[in-house]
Amino acid sequence: VFNFSAGPAVLPEDVLREAADEMLDYKGCGMSVMEMSHRSGEFAQIIQTAEQDLRDLMGIPGNYRVLFMQGGGTAQFSAIPLNLLNGGVGDYIVSGSWSKKAAKEAARMGRARVIASSEDDGFNRIPDLENLHIDEDASYVYLCHNETITGTVYHELPETGDVPLVADISSSFLSEPIDVSRFGLLFGGVQKNIGPAGVAIVIVRDDLIPEKTPDGVPIILDYRTTADKGSLYNTPPCYTIYICGKVFKWLKAQGGIEAIGRRNHAKADALYGYLDKSDLFKTTVRKQDRSIMNVPFVTGDADLDAAFIEACRQAGIVNIKGHRSVGGMRASIYNAMPIEGVNALLDVMESFERSHG
Amino acid sequence: VFNFSAGPAVLPEDVLREAADEMLDYKGCGMSVMEMSHRSGEFAQIIQTAEQDLRDLMGIPGNYRVLFMQGGGTAQFSAIPLNLLNGGVGDYIVSGSWSKKAAKEAARMGRARVIASSEDDGFNRIPDLENLHIDEDASYVYLCHNETITGTVYHELPETGDVPLVADISSSFLSEPIDVSRFGLLFGGVQKNIGPAGVAIVIVRDDLIPEKTPDGVPIILDYRTTADKGSLYNTPPCYTIYICGKVFKWLKAQGGIEAIGRRNHAKADALYGYLDKSDLFKTTVRKQDRSIMNVPFVTGDADLDAAFIEACRQAGIVNIKGHRSVGGMRASIYNAMPIEGVNALLDVMESFERSHG
Repeated sequence: VFNFSAGPAVLPEDVLREAADEMLDYKGCGMSVMEMSHRSGEFAQIIQTAEQDLRDLMGIPGNYRVLFMQGGGTAQFSAIPLNLLNGGVGDYIVSGSWSKKAAKEAARMGRARVIASSEDDGFNRIPDLENLHIDEDASYVYLCHNETITGTVYHELPETGDVPLVADISSSFLSEPIDVSRFGLLFGGVQKNIGPAGVAIVIVRDDLIPEKTPDGVPIILDYRTTADKGSLYNTPPCYTIYICGKVFKWLKAQGGIEAIGRRNHAKADALYGYLDKSDLFKTTVRKQDRSIMNVPFVTGDADLDAAFIEACRQAGIVNIKGHRSVGGMRASIYNAMPIEGVNALLDVMESFERSHG
Repeated sequence: VFNFSAGPAVLPEDVLREAADEMLDYKGCGMSVMEMSHRSGEFAQIIQTAEQDLRDLMGIPGNYRVLFMQGGGTAQFSAIPLNLLNGGVGDYIVSGSWSKKAAKEAARMGRARVIASSEDDGFNRIPDLENLHIDEDASYVYLCHNETITGTVYHELPETGDVPLVADISSSFLSEPIDVSRFGLLFGGVQKNIGPAGVAIVIVRDDLIPEKTPDGVPIILDYRTTADKGSLYNTPPCYTIYICGKVFKWLKAQGGIEAIGRRNHAKADALYGYLDKSDLFKTTVRKQDRSIMNVPFVTGDADLDAAFIEACRQAGIVNIKGHRSVGGMRASIYNAMPIEGVNALLDVMESFERSHG
């Protein structure tokens, strides 16, 4: 089947095969990675290699730390204000459900202000980034790089001067090249482009990590301790990190992020190209803000949408139903979705349009 | 090899085999469990079955909720005071490193007091439980049921009257029957007796869950939201929960907790029996407080300890080295350690004592 789930999502078959082969005996050590002490030499090798491969893939500068944390992206909605506010305010650009949730949680953790929003347009676009009013005491400007539900992405970034830019890249992680040095902090849950749910990766410029743990920050959300302990203050989700590491190796074997980015653009272009000429299906997002990872589309008729989803299911295309807030369909075409999956979807769309158009 | 790691730790081979077999295709759905939406029917079945099997195994009363949370036991060190203090104080019985850490974190999150401690005796025993002075405004009394590092367990529980008893059962989870109704809250990281690291299970009496989320509690540590959303507020560590569920099925197939408890006592009795008559090896724990899961022992001579650990390694016995704070050796004999593993260890001990005693 072709799995268009928005996350947890499709993983490379080669990675799953390797994991199955190594399940009872990792490289002759007689144990599963699930059974290994996180203080063992074998696991040290796994986590250090994963970090180095991620650094290579993204070109992460040496003055950024890579943290493997628990609780998903949602835990970072709290951790970011707890670690970074330092008495200031968090300025939020709200482009969809996820940045809206992050802003709400930051307000609970300290002080947050929405400085731009596209909510009045149903989040069908990135908010206007010209003339942003950034607070004088802003500790950071926050955005969600790719909104998974409504399918928008920032093709340009806002200018924030000396104020660090913080971005949730959960659903665009490793999908195409990104200039890490433009950001103070990048983070994402791994369960879309990288691995099974259970890890969030935080890439943070080292001067933004508080020198000492701020009062009242729960220890597992504390960047200082996590950085000082190499993400091993307490037992990390070792097996999840191991699978992420395999995906990093797979990405390198695919030619790295430039090559993957070209393939992702080709997949997205094929879908949007069809949608732009279709009389039946329409995209829901402003053209210049379209995500290359999540492609929502609708017929405008709930019964037709349901019939189309059923036609997909019969063709082995699953998890194509849109989020309830948008309706219709959503094709999540992460790194591990092959072009064959997109072509299979296009075949069903064309055939459905012929019979129902 | 026989893996005596204190955690992450040995898992049942049958469970690992099944997981490997299902890695690419879970029950004919064409996907790995790693790739499934946490909102899918398949995953709903997995998490609901896991919860029900755990309820059956432990006899969890209907007025207790079962929460699957992230961040390990350490996250609960923060979550417990954040959710339960409600302006009162947490009374801590400190019997080892883990309860000491929990008390320290609770003091950071609110107010905590150590009401008994065995630290002056190097945590070689459970503190005296007679004449505990429980604070008038105590919100709970906290203990760590089984201290993994020093190898103690509570064979009797303190009397706390109307004050709820809260216990960390990370390393004694499902090791023998426990009367859940004696506790207000039980929790544990799963990476010792239940599954791969990445999930903490919280079993909490429903009247202790705050009616609404307390101010300032990070959302992923919030019991109210987690309970209301069936542990699916955000994406949970689906694959880890799936493996936990398989271990619950395996435990049921072994005859349940009574049967496993008998086997665990037999394994522990074999080890302690030898240690009690050995002239070379000694236990480090007061007799009435000995853990049946973690058995530390020493020769009293660091060079002999090292030679013994090397003799073990040659016999395929790994991760037997003790924690640095105790030294010597530690045999963690969790549910999935077969009696054959304990016998193999005893063989090496006997042969080593003959040649070095």
